[in-house]
Amino acid sequence: MNYCPECGGPVARQVPSGDDRPRDVCTSCHRIHYQNPKLVVGALPEWRDRILLCRRAIAPRADYWTLPAGYLENGETAAEGAQRETREEAGAHVTDLAPFGLFDLPHVNQIYLMFRGRLTSPALAPGPESHAAALFTEAEIPWNRLAFTVIEDTLKCYFADRTRGRFTLHTGRIAPGRWVDRAPP
Amino acid sequence: MNYCPECGGPVARQVPSGDDRPRDVCTSCHRIHYQNPKLVVGALPEWRDRILLCRRAIAPRADYWTLPAGYLENGETAAEGAQRETREEAGAHVTDLAPFGLFDLPHVNQIYLMFRGRLTSPALAPGPESHAAALFTEAEIPWNRLAFTVIEDTLKCYFADRTRGRFTLHTGRIAPGRWVDRAPP
Repeated sequence: MNYCPECGGPVARQVPSGDDRPRDVCTSCHRIHYQNPKLVVGALPEWRDRILLCRRAIAPRADYWTLPAGYLENGETAAEGAQRETREEAGAHVTDLAPFGLFDLPHVNQIYLMFRGRLTSPALAPGPESHAAALFTEAEIPWNRLAFTVIEDTLKCYFADRTRGRFTLHTGRIAPGRWVDRAPP
Repeated sequence: MNYCPECGGPVARQVPSGDDRPRDVCTSCHRIHYQNPKLVVGALPEWRDRILLCRRAIAPRADYWTLPAGYLENGETAAEGAQRETREEAGAHVTDLAPFGLFDLPHVNQIYLMFRGRLTSPALAPGPESHAAALFTEAEIPWNRLAFTVIEDTLKCYFADRTRGRFTLHTGRIAPGRWVDRAPP
């Protein structure tokens, strides 16, 4: 941040009085502009014994497979955001959403909240951010072509829970960099 | 937002190409400045059969009681944020945090994530944002002097779970305005 979004004055990185960390402070109107983590909401959409995945059409990790997920928008509930992402990325409607995974990614200032849910139809229509959308059995999951660690971890937790017949909330911290040496698809 | 935080140019509210909702777009450098909900993290700190509450020293709802909670900071995990808020507001250390409540407040663009946890000591030292911090049994909870609906709901869920002997993750959408006619403390 270089300029104050309110008054256009120059911004400096300072520790405000009574605070304990540097913030973007306007040197003209003295407003403090806080930066906070973003919440990524997503779905684990089930159709019978299959799971919906989308092949990304955009960076980062274009052409790799992912669960529908994206930034929560103002005015939405978290579950509504996960439904919207599923609609936007796969043209599908997911219902009966239950929190399934809560993952911290502090190195990129993100929290992922993944919901398990049920597709109301197997008909898919990938949107502009997806090259493809498809339903996979456990044996068909493209484990070495998944876009992100958090997606791999979510799917592993899901199939482990499904095998033992009980779903719980999973939490974890996702470390950076696990994908660096992964071969491209 | 009136000015672009990057280049200082004037910002206009526009629906970007390929998007479906208005954003703050710089008319000079054309950057899109997204606004997203904030995550509030908090703790339900237990000491034997008591719960820690803080009496707010700041607006809104000064002098009303609340659980330690506040905006998650960049670089933190959600549980670390809840621990920091407990330290800042009550001078206390809470450990063994488990997700307990996930509440949507879409009318104020917030998601609350509340963790149940255990205090390592009953010694409290309220910080600058608290007039007081104290430990309450269920019978002592000041129900008509609680600061926010989401705090009341979290506590109700907690004592209901404790009574039946099993804690689960609670979710809900908090409606606006339930406090408007509430008498001041």
